[in-house]
Amino acid sequence: MTHDIDNQQHSSELWGGRFLEATDAFVQRFTASYRFDRRLAKQDILGSKAHADMLMASGILSEEECRDIHSGLDQIAEEIAQDRFEWRVEREDVHMNIEARLTEIIGDTGKKLHTGRSRNDQVATDIRLFVREAIAEISQELTRLQTGIVALAGVHADTIMPGFTHLQVAQPVTFGHHLLAWNEMLTRDFDRLSDCRIRLNRCPLGSAALAGTTFPIDRAMTAEALGFDAPTENSLDSVADRDFAVEFTACSALLLTHLSRMSEELILWTSAQFNFVAIPDRFCTGSSIMPQKKNPDVPELVRGKTGRVNGHLVALLTLMKSQPLAYNKDNQEDKEPLFDTIDTVLDCLRAFADMVPALEPKVDIMRRAAQQGFATATDLADYLVRKGLPFRDAHEVVGKAVAYCVSETLMLEDLSLETLQSFHSSIEVDVYDVLTLEGSVAARDHLGGTAPNQVRAAVERAEASLMARNL
Amino acid sequence: MTHDIDNQQHSSELWGGRFLEATDAFVQRFTASYRFDRRLAKQDILGSKAHADMLMASGILSEEECRDIHSGLDQIAEEIAQDRFEWRVEREDVHMNIEARLTEIIGDTGKKLHTGRSRNDQVATDIRLFVREAIAEISQELTRLQTGIVALAGVHADTIMPGFTHLQVAQPVTFGHHLLAWNEMLTRDFDRLSDCRIRLNRCPLGSAALAGTTFPIDRAMTAEALGFDAPTENSLDSVADRDFAVEFTACSALLLTHLSRMSEELILWTSAQFNFVAIPDRFCTGSSIMPQKKNPDVPELVRGKTGRVNGHLVALLTLMKSQPLAYNKDNQEDKEPLFDTIDTVLDCLRAFADMVPALEPKVDIMRRAAQQGFATATDLADYLVRKGLPFRDAHEVVGKAVAYCVSETLMLEDLSLETLQSFHSSIEVDVYDVLTLEGSVAARDHLGGTAPNQVRAAVERAEASLMARNL
Amino acid sequence: MTHDIDNQQHSSELWGGRFLEATDAFVQRFTASYRFDRRLAKQDILGSKAHADMLMASGILSEEECRDIHSGLDQIAEEIAQDRFEWRVEREDVHMNIEARLTEIIGDTGKKLHTGRSRNDQVATDIRLFVREAIAEISQELTRLQTGIVALAGVHADTIMPGFTHLQVAQPVTFGHHLLAWNEMLTRDFDRLSDCRIRLNRCPLGSAALAGTTFPIDRAMTAEALGFDAPTENSLDSVADRDFAVEFTACSALLLTHLSRMSEELILWTSAQFNFVAIPDRFCTGSSIMPQKKNPDVPELVRGKTGRVNGHLVALLTLMKSQPLAYNKDNQEDKEPLFDTIDTVLDCLRAFADMVPALEPKVDIMRRAAQQGFATATDLADYLVRKGLPFRDAHEVVGKAVAYCVSETLMLEDLSLETLQSFHSSIEVDVYDVLTLEGSVAARDHLGGTAPNQVRAAVERAEASLMARNL
Amino acid sequence: MTHDIDNQQHSSELWGGRFLEATDAFVQRFTASYRFDRRLAKQDILGSKAHADMLMASGILSEEECRDIHSGLDQIAEEIAQDRFEWRVEREDVHMNIEARLTEIIGDTGKKLHTGRSRNDQVATDIRLFVREAIAEISQELTRLQTGIVALAGVHADTIMPGFTHLQVAQPVTFGHHLLAWNEMLTRDFDRLSDCRIRLNRCPLGSAALAGTTFPIDRAMTAEALGFDAPTENSLDSVADRDFAVEFTACSALLLTHLSRMSEELILWTSAQFNFVAIPDRFCTGSSIMPQKKNPDVPELVRGKTGRVNGHLVALLTLMKSQPLAYNKDNQEDKEPLFDTIDTVLDCLRAFADMVPALEPKVDIMRRAAQQGFATATDLADYLVRKGLPFRDAHEVVGKAVAYCVSETLMLEDLSLETLQSFHSSIEVDVYDVLTLEGSVAARDHLGGTAPNQVRAAVERAEASLMARNL
Repeated sequence: MTHDIDNQQHSSELWGGRFLEATDAFVQRFTASYRFDRRLAKQDILGSKAHADMLMASGILSEEECRDIHSGLDQIAEEIAQDRFEWRVEREDVHMNIEARLTEIIGDTGKKLHTGRSRNDQVATDIRLFVREAIAEISQELTRLQTGIVALAGVHADTIMPGFTHLQVAQPVTFGHHLLAWNEMLTRDFDRLSDCRIRLNRCPLGSAALAGTTFPIDRAMTAEALGFDAPTENSLDSVADRDFAVEFTACSALLLTHLSRMSEELILWTSAQFNFVAIPDRFCTGSSIMPQKKNPDVPELVRGKTGRVNGHLVALLTLMKSQPLAYNKDNQEDKEPLFDTIDTVLDCLRAFADMVPALEPKVDIMRRAAQQGFATATDLADYLVRKGLPFRDAHEVVGKAVAYCVSETLMLEDLSLETLQSFHSSIEVDVYDVLTLEGSVAARDHLGGTAPNQVRAAVERAEASLMARNL
Repeated sequence: MTHDIDNQQHSSELWGGRFLEATDAFVQRFTASYRFDRRLAKQDILGSKAHADMLMASGILSEEECRDIHSGLDQIAEEIAQDRFEWRVEREDVHMNIEARLTEIIGDTGKKLHTGRSRNDQVATDIRLFVREAIAEISQELTRLQTGIVALAGVHADTIMPGFTHLQVAQPVTFGHHLLAWNEMLTRDFDRLSDCRIRLNRCPLGSAALAGTTFPIDRAMTAEALGFDAPTENSLDSVADRDFAVEFTACSALLLTHLSRMSEELILWTSAQFNFVAIPDRFCTGSSIMPQKKNPDVPELVRGKTGRVNGHLVALLTLMKSQPLAYNKDNQEDKEPLFDTIDTVLDCLRAFADMVPALEPKVDIMRRAAQQGFATATDLADYLVRKGLPFRDAHEVVGKAVAYCVSETLMLEDLSLETLQSFHSSIEVDVYDVLTLEGSVAARDHLGGTAPNQVRAAVERAEASLMARNL
Repeated sequence: MTHDIDNQQHSSELWGGRFLEATDAFVQRFTASYRFDRRLAKQDILGSKAHADMLMASGILSEEECRDIHSGLDQIAEEIAQDRFEWRVEREDVHMNIEARLTEIIGDTGKKLHTGRSRNDQVATDIRLFVREAIAEISQELTRLQTGIVALAGVHADTIMPGFTHLQVAQPVTFGHHLLAWNEMLTRDFDRLSDCRIRLNRCPLGSAALAGTTFPIDRAMTAEALGFDAPTENSLDSVADRDFAVEFTACSALLLTHLSRMSEELILWTSAQFNFVAIPDRFCTGSSIMPQKKNPDVPELVRGKTGRVNGHLVALLTLMKSQPLAYNKDNQEDKEPLFDTIDTVLDCLRAFADMVPALEPKVDIMRRAAQQGFATATDLADYLVRKGLPFRDAHEVVGKAVAYCVSETLMLEDLSLETLQSFHSSIEVDVYDVLTLEGSVAARDHLGGTAPNQVRAAVERAEASLMARNL
Repeated sequence: MTHDIDNQQHSSELWGGRFLEATDAFVQRFTASYRFDRRLAKQDILGSKAHADMLMASGILSEEECRDIHSGLDQIAEEIAQDRFEWRVEREDVHMNIEARLTEIIGDTGKKLHTGRSRNDQVATDIRLFVREAIAEISQELTRLQTGIVALAGVHADTIMPGFTHLQVAQPVTFGHHLLAWNEMLTRDFDRLSDCRIRLNRCPLGSAALAGTTFPIDRAMTAEALGFDAPTENSLDSVADRDFAVEFTACSALLLTHLSRMSEELILWTSAQFNFVAIPDRFCTGSSIMPQKKNPDVPELVRGKTGRVNGHLVALLTLMKSQPLAYNKDNQEDKEPLFDTIDTVLDCLRAFADMVPALEPKVDIMRRAAQQGFATATDLADYLVRKGLPFRDAHEVVGKAVAYCVSETLMLEDLSLETLQSFHSSIEVDVYDVLTLEGSVAARDHLGGTAPNQVRAAVERAEASLMARNL
């Protein structure tokens, strides 16, 4: 375990004026953030261009200076894209690496770019731009996954499987109905991210260090140029606020929680014991020792990654707890959890969006499983209610019939009419209709119910809603 | 550490049919939830009445039966209000305690109430109603607190204090401006809770155990009767979903995080070292041993309670992780963290809403503190920029002037013009204007800046926005 | 949602000297802790008696005063035990409720008890005593559970079941071997709690508010009287430290995590699809709507409670983050998560310790399940290695044989020798021995392996180790 | 936001036998772990050598084969050290990258290395070795930091500062005493890590996939060769267990929590308002906009990093929650949080160990601060107790004297004897001795108290204990 350290000692070019002593080399590395915040380079350059344009419009920069800044920043963007940009630890972060390089390229005009702003509002702007883009990408992948789920649901609107509560067979449902439950979860995730985007889409630029600036800046202009809905309202809050990071990560934690539930089901369903679904080989891996193994790695890994995002949420909440205003260095720690959350969510969605349409449901096995476990016992109770019994009494009657079947290893539909009548005299021959799987699912025929025609209607609504999304 | 246990062994009245053996007494206590879920009694009764009305409209109950159920439930509500209701452990939860008591009161008709529903959709409905009411109460207290903050900000639009970054004096700001930063945080909390409310305000009733019901129910009718915007879309999701609990708790964690930041500032400000603000005695407590102590208990305790809500959020996320659909007993664990989150948020908001308007800022001390720490150094740099220096060079010049002052224990405004000019020749006598605190704050005169007239305008906008809230 | 509040306004009897204004009634309720910290009453009285004895030995109290204090405290203990003690909100906490009542009973001598101590060291002492007792109780229940597990393992040292990785059948193991894996987890929990106990068993009494006291106290005497190993080393640390609470809760979170893993397995095993194990009716509950249901409530609930304890751990870590020394009011928030953790751990252990010995393994079904899924494929690979193939090549050969079986729906042992030889010529008739389940488990015959005689030896070691525990 | 992906599609060399379809390229990247687990290369090679030696001793490998394996692994170690090793995504992880390369170098003998083991026990072994080494490094840095703290405490055994509770001045303490409180926290961290090391130092090698192996392996031999205290007891537990990761991370979270408390104090102390301590320039950084700023970056960043480690703890606990035995792919997610925890702890300790000895306490300012805030009020109360008042009455008397001083803006020692006597007649001229700071601290003269001679004795004990550590 060794840590490579840049050993030379540098005075900061950025704020060295009042310092009598150079920064300790280890401290420099420890406090520098360019290693991870360089992922913000694109956003930083975008923000700087908008800032320069505004400074020109406000008469602070000349047209020529502004042009030079643009061309210098373009060159830097290219250097970064081509991996030729030399990141330097003594320039601390993405902002100062870019600004210092700009000055190398275009000379003293580069030193004018920081007029009327501070790294505090600059980084807040960069991260918001970055998260906004992430939300757009995530929304697309989410929609791709949902489209796959809904399509599969449409195919399996009639496919019967056991519905579970407490992992015990409860009542028959259709596989399409089950898949639509997944779709509902993800729709809420989509909506939550949309709400989050609205709140984050305010521009902090111009808040400067914490109090605003003495230059005659036009905050509305930069806000608009960068696609924000408006400038933020308060400069202190603007540099102190990381709500958008916490809110985005909270949305992501819930999204991953949903994926963990789907994953759990896929892992169960691909076990030899359930055997409801096969996942194609290309989404699985094998074992280094057991030649027969085919493991559902994708859902397992996604399930595991839930912890990661929950952890990042805790990291960010802990980070912000009891920080006095305005900006503190602590906040440098906001980026890594945020970036990793974004990467994780995108990867997991991509894996699922690829995999779900390729799932191979084993229709016969699912149907057989629904026949076990007395899945239509509730239907029998409802039947008795229609014959006039209060529900609680009907429940009691059916409970006894089930206990009898358990002891005799029978299914309810195996019982003769005579035996059934021994549990309650009102039972007649039409009882066998309600004990069929098809009868059971078809009877749950109301909004949200598992009846195939309800599932088909729900698929249509879901498709229309997905189509209507503005991505 | 002893646990009182109900020692008698009971067969369940509710589902005993297929069981050959009574529940173990400890298991009964361990799995029963009435001790905490009885807080849902009001919501449960409301939901049952709406369900009964719908069953009548659908022809499942007679008018008389429905009337009996209403009157029985009214009597139960009264028994609970008067603390005469006998909660019984063998009836497990609030739902079954109420239903069983209803049957005691009105006879067999009580047994018909559970037709076409299950505890799974019933409890999901109850909690949604409960959280909806909590959001309404919290929104009111939030608004009361914000109103107090904004009013105080209006009074102190001109009151100068040091603005801090890194807890080091950064630039002068006004106390009003600082308070408005608090207001911004809380506005986002209000908005987040409003969004959360929209998502939760869908009615799961009619989803029954997981698949819907075979009775001809009218889900739109119950949804409307209970003030929901619509029924939920999918029965499996309806009983499996606890997103609203997680989302509400995540909103609350962020709210408490904001209160923790305000608390930290109040604790700092009431220390002998800062001494910026006094908290009236009635919000403080003393020490059992040190007779001189007056402790800022309220903010300390609120800061501490942040942990509690963060913890509940983790509890809920952990709870939901990798649960297969639909309902599992695990979910019984959703209520206590949720209830405690609600109580905590309401208590903390109430304490702050009472205390903030009573804060006593020490205007002179805050002003004096702003004079220390070279708070106007940035103004000097900006001055040099206006004289033609690039910002980076101006920064360097001022840095050296500050270093000189530190070594001589002087303030910038103490330096003679000659000395100032020794740092840069462009400095003229008008420099002393930008070095004053009033000049500094007045110069940050743009949207979101700390200039007193900006603060006054922001106060007006904030007041209008608070007034416009629909509470 | 209403909160009952004690409406009368009181001046504090405890520290009112310097206060000009009575505490606000809501603030009084908000900051008071007696509602939960009265669970420390027993420990508080114990500590006060030891403190009084020491004050007497040090000449600060007379023998008579000390006797009076003892008898007053005994009376209070009785009042509390009989639920006759009147807890008063204006006395804030357990300490002051008891002290003030003591003075009511024995007069002015009661006012001398607080000499040389403060609530800060008093509460630290009380909690340590409380947690120490909790660890003792938990250790006993843990041992009871482990004893049940190991006994069951002994009975099933030869019972074959499929071992899983990735929830796919991997290799046959014995049920006894699987149970011993549970035992290993719990042994680590036991050891961690023992280590935690050593660290917490230092007495903070005498640290007073934060700096020690001016009275000639004898800290070694009180430490010994209360069963501590030694006094703590530093008074500031003693009142600021809550490590023992965090460490205990971290140990508990891991313990619950282990129980959640066992719970998950029990839930899987009792599903219709696995059907490996039955849980007796007395540990299960039914459904209010589905008459056939028998749900594994105990493991489900325990699995859910994992979230609770994880949450408490986060609450405590968040609480302590960045608190300056020494004591802050925030720390009042340490008790509820701690108490609830203790209750949760004890309840879950009790439920498991009762349930595990009553589990009913379905030996035939487990055996059949082990025959599926090519569980002995690794044995075949190992066989080929012994015939001279490098392991990687053997793995490849068997992989192909398995793929063939999958396509033909056969098991490996169904293949004729000829067919087997078509995959590798070195295979001979003795191959069928290694393909049997019994051969497979018996062959893993080394320390920690699943061979029945290894399992039996491990059971003996485990029993001896459990017997040797000093509880 | 783009992700570079290895686009070619590969069949796995490792387990491809039974697969009909190559792994999807994205899935391959998504599930591969070599990008982060290659940090285990050193441990993996060490483990493989020990395994090869044992296979030879057990007659499974020939002497020559074993020699070849050693020399091949040595070559690989060199390739990795020189960054010439070609990591390949289709080889998934560190283990298979090394094994496949070994076979390239030494031919078919490389394929024999995996005999009698699996990646499941291999990775468990590697991580344990890695964490063991990390604990050693952390223990050294901890000790270096503690040594610096204790040395500084020795220098400042008499330096008076205000002790705080509730961030209000409470009683005078010495700076040395305060520093020793830090030392106590860190001593507990050291001890916790030592206990953690004992539990992790058991060797899982030989557990193979989950059930042990059919080869006649000698687990004691590999355990000893790798410096473990013993082999683990149960093969299923060995591959399923990640307790050591959770426990280590929990220890680290508490350690960082301690550093966050020290950080908070340093940030307070370096504020203009407190001004108790200066941090040398080389540990600070400046501002890009405010030329005067000198920010305590190191403690701020360390405080922020607390969130990170708390987050990793939650990630790991969430990861393990309700995983059925034995190994699941989820566990691949254990490494990144663990590695980042180790890096974070080491970096923070290093930064503190460098910085603490360089702190510059401002002795006069601290002393002056102790004179404010009635820090000796408790001494006055104790004085009255010695004159015969019960403590509670003495507390009341002093409270009133303080209230008088507050209203008159006086300090207690400013009051004339006459005025003092007006609060209680027993006060005599010797009262002024107990009101001095020196008198106050010297009077707390018992184990753990702040009296300078107690501090000096504590420093000696601490030094001896640090010297005695076996690092």
